[in-house]
Amino acid sequence: MAKKVTGPEIERLIQLLARVPGLGPRSARRAALHLIKKKEQLLAPLAIAMSEANDRVVMCSTCGNADTSDPCTICTDPSRDQNVLIVVEDVSDLWALERAAAMNAAYHVLGGTLSPLDGIGPEDLTIGPLVERVAGGAIKEIIIAVNATVEGQTTAHYITDQLAGSDVTITRLAHGVPVGGELDYLDEGTLAAALRSRTSF
Amino acid sequence: MAKKVTGPEIERLIQLLARVPGLGPRSARRAALHLIKKKEQLLAPLAIAMSEANDRVVMCSTCGNADTSDPCTICTDPSRDQNVLIVVEDVSDLWALERAAAMNAAYHVLGGTLSPLDGIGPEDLTIGPLVERVAGGAIKEIIIAVNATVEGQTTAHYITDQLAGSDVTITRLAHGVPVGGELDYLDEGTLAAALRSRTSF
Repeated sequence: MAKKVTGPEIERLIQLLARVPGLGPRSARRAALHLIKKKEQLLAPLAIAMSEANDRVVMCSTCGNADTSDPCTICTDPSRDQNVLIVVEDVSDLWALERAAAMNAAYHVLGGTLSPLDGIGPEDLTIGPLVERVAGGAIKEIIIAVNATVEGQTTAHYITDQLAGSDVTITRLAHGVPVGGELDYLDEGTLAAALRSRTSF
Repeated sequence: MAKKVTGPEIERLIQLLARVPGLGPRSARRAALHLIKKKEQLLAPLAIAMSEANDRVVMCSTCGNADTSDPCTICTDPSRDQNVLIVVEDVSDLWALERAAAMNAAYHVLGGTLSPLDGIGPEDLTIGPLVERVAGGAIKEIIIAVNATVEGQTTAHYITDQLAGSDVTITRLAHGVPVGGELDYLDEGTLAAALRSRTSF
């Protein structure tokens, strides 16, 4: 602002909020003002929730999930099939798959995809630890659930190569028509894959 | 989520973030994950900034501005013309006018507009305190800078009526073509007002 109109606390709050994904400089001001007006209902609880998350959330050293215990809730859950690993790029993908609630397996978060142009090689991802987990012998199946992008598929192929010697089953997510999707809006690659992988009625 | 995958701290953080204007349930998850990944750079500073704002930000009892002191920085600024009050609906409007940096005056935040349908009457706004400030005798000009909406204009007329007896000058913002605006995209009311209030070249 051109002239000092408030104490530095509000400006600092706006600056930090503007760095949260989904908020820009303008919406950060609106958010800050809303928080200040809803101090007891929102600002104070959010400050506490952030402080607690900062103190207690850690990344699981086994699978890479974000949790308050290490190993995480998923890795220590006896009701899950710990012999099946779903390999994902990011924790957000793990959350998305858990919302689908289709599998009761464990996970392995890669932390990204191979991208030579961005200088991201195998050593920047948790591919080494994945190979070690498989070498441990207990893992029966690896489900590669990376994004259907060029980088994702490159990473999937690299992982398959690394695990070539082991006797683990390696699968990947099916390609096909999204549920609720309209054929007219789908790309040729998806339609071709859906035809190739057609299932009996 | 269908099954417990993390501690309650992350879920709580997501729930609270989803109530921040500009973020929804989906973007709150993305924001929470970003914050957890950037603990030192963003999560910890934001927790502190929110805690400090919660402890120290108050609404100025004179003008209604949000600040860490009462009376606020603007009301105690000797370099401002404290005899001119810009009347705004909300603190966000005060901030917007300060960014324009066109006036060096004081403010009066109404806290909304008259809206009988929503049950908002004069006693819900700071119109009484505004009349008292004017009755104090030091105020020379009131600039009514409410939104150019029906509710805003109704509120402006009500304020003008309430101040009818005093010898304060009451003005309002000019209507006209926004800077950078294209005539073809402007409504008839704005164009008519811009023509009526035309100025010499």
